[in-house]
Amino acid sequence: MDEHKIIQKYFSDVGSAYLVEQGIRISVGDDAAIISNPPDKESVVSIDTSIEGTHFLSSMQAKDIAYRSVAVALSDLAACGATPAWYTLALSMEGFNEDWIKEFGEGLQLISDEYRIPLIGGDTTKGPLSISVQVTGYCEPGKAITRKGSSKEDLVFVSGFIGEAARGLKVLRDGLESMDGTLAYLRPKARVDLGQRLIGIASAAIDVSDGLIQDLGRICEESNLGSEILLDSIPTQLSRPLSGDEINQGDDYEICFCSSKSNLEEIETISKELKIPIVNIGKMTEGSSVKVINGDGLEVEIKSGFKHF
Amino acid sequence: MDEHKIIQKYFSDVGSAYLVEQGIRISVGDDAAIISNPPDKESVVSIDTSIEGTHFLSSMQAKDIAYRSVAVALSDLAACGATPAWYTLALSMEGFNEDWIKEFGEGLQLISDEYRIPLIGGDTTKGPLSISVQVTGYCEPGKAITRKGSSKEDLVFVSGFIGEAARGLKVLRDGLESMDGTLAYLRPKARVDLGQRLIGIASAAIDVSDGLIQDLGRICEESNLGSEILLDSIPTQLSRPLSGDEINQGDDYEICFCSSKSNLEEIETISKELKIPIVNIGKMTEGSSVKVINGDGLEVEIKSGFKHF
Repeated sequence: MDEHKIIQKYFSDVGSAYLVEQGIRISVGDDAAIISNPPDKESVVSIDTSIEGTHFLSSMQAKDIAYRSVAVALSDLAACGATPAWYTLALSMEGFNEDWIKEFGEGLQLISDEYRIPLIGGDTTKGPLSISVQVTGYCEPGKAITRKGSSKEDLVFVSGFIGEAARGLKVLRDGLESMDGTLAYLRPKARVDLGQRLIGIASAAIDVSDGLIQDLGRICEESNLGSEILLDSIPTQLSRPLSGDEINQGDDYEICFCSSKSNLEEIETISKELKIPIVNIGKMTEGSSVKVINGDGLEVEIKSGFKHF
Repeated sequence: MDEHKIIQKYFSDVGSAYLVEQGIRISVGDDAAIISNPPDKESVVSIDTSIEGTHFLSSMQAKDIAYRSVAVALSDLAACGATPAWYTLALSMEGFNEDWIKEFGEGLQLISDEYRIPLIGGDTTKGPLSISVQVTGYCEPGKAITRKGSSKEDLVFVSGFIGEAARGLKVLRDGLESMDGTLAYLRPKARVDLGQRLIGIASAAIDVSDGLIQDLGRICEESNLGSEILLDSIPTQLSRPLSGDEINQGDDYEICFCSSKSNLEEIETISKELKIPIVNIGKMTEGSSVKVINGDGLEVEIKSGFKHF
């Protein structure tokens, strides 16, 4: 079966229920996809590659691999406050395994349904398993949240719980029978609703993919500031505070953002309405690095986050 | 050096001279890129993956690999008649080799300059060498050329010469000292100017990537027609006609299109003005397959084009 047929058979219907509402005129199967952009919006675009052994485990099911690969790309849009509209897929795989591809297509369909986004094009090639997903969303002109723009008086917030995905990954790696707690790793939620609500509230934001401290460091870098974080305030589902080793493991796909003190009440309202915990974990400061302070007021050494090379 | 820094240092300036004219508000380095779409245009999007050993040779220089990876993606836009605007890159590589990355960036810059398109975002991951390029262009609403829409009376045309890239690839594979004739493979030209001129002229078009006959077969499939091609009319730079084995090797990145007889004169004018040979190689017919006829009026057996799996 040739590439053309694979794409047609298994992927051309993924999210096709949303083609019209997303303005897609021509989808999977032609030389290119054709999109009617909504007037008076800006496009927000992000691309993410997931590679077997690095970004997901070989032991994972095709459905989870597909879901996760799209979710991590959507997470970047969430951090910008964009509304996802559609995505394309570049899938490399070693050979043609019909069951695997079918299951992979089901995983795509799951996330397409969740965010109402069609798959509108792609390329399927023979090679080591690798999935690149490019997502496009829209935002009001000039409103998207970037990593820049935080100011010295801002507080630092994070959504959800930190370290859950890393614990899930450990369960998967250890090959335990119980899959308890693995969903945070297998099916991360892109905080799209939250990101949209943070427009006008967050002065800067990033999604936590490589590690909370490392990613916050990027906001600091882009904003020419430092930051001071209280270790014990970092939200966890464990009954004890997280350790310095545990807060920077990455894969959380929560949103870390900065906002003025004056927005505290509004942020609490957003948290309640969306039923997503949002916690103030520290503040922006002069300087250029992220300091993590423990209960004794001492700076904690932090394990480096995800290294790409 | 982490991914973030690599992208910033070597890729953030690629094509940056064209950011303003292409409406890019935020480029490489944030969570996502942000684009002001031109009003009253449709977006045309294509993604292409190039994998070492399959889509390019390990022996190729980084500059050529970069150039070629973008060119093959642009070729899809050319076939639609779209004007390229920007691209994103998902680059996987085994390790961090500064010289290689620098040279790769130079190859990107070359093609960015040629088509006036900035690189606006990307992802760099550790893994077997693989390059996914997503290009976006614009077209007047409803005007883009697709694979559908050819009619039974149409003639079939192809631009440029067929088989040149395959001959270039052979020279490269044989490791000959002379690099004569390899440019067609190393630095394919996306026929962007031609595609734009074919709007309103071509009833259907495709870029020749997998093989002339195989790709024309896709037009037939989408148009529910067959096609009859004269072997001796297929344009070549050899002093003899191409053989059945030679016309379907792919990598040509020429445009194969259908058009009514009444456009013959206009097509000749376009060919002269753009200084791109365009030859009538046959016609569309009833049926569902592409038949290739030799000088004796007999059907020629055609070697299959590029198989993705």
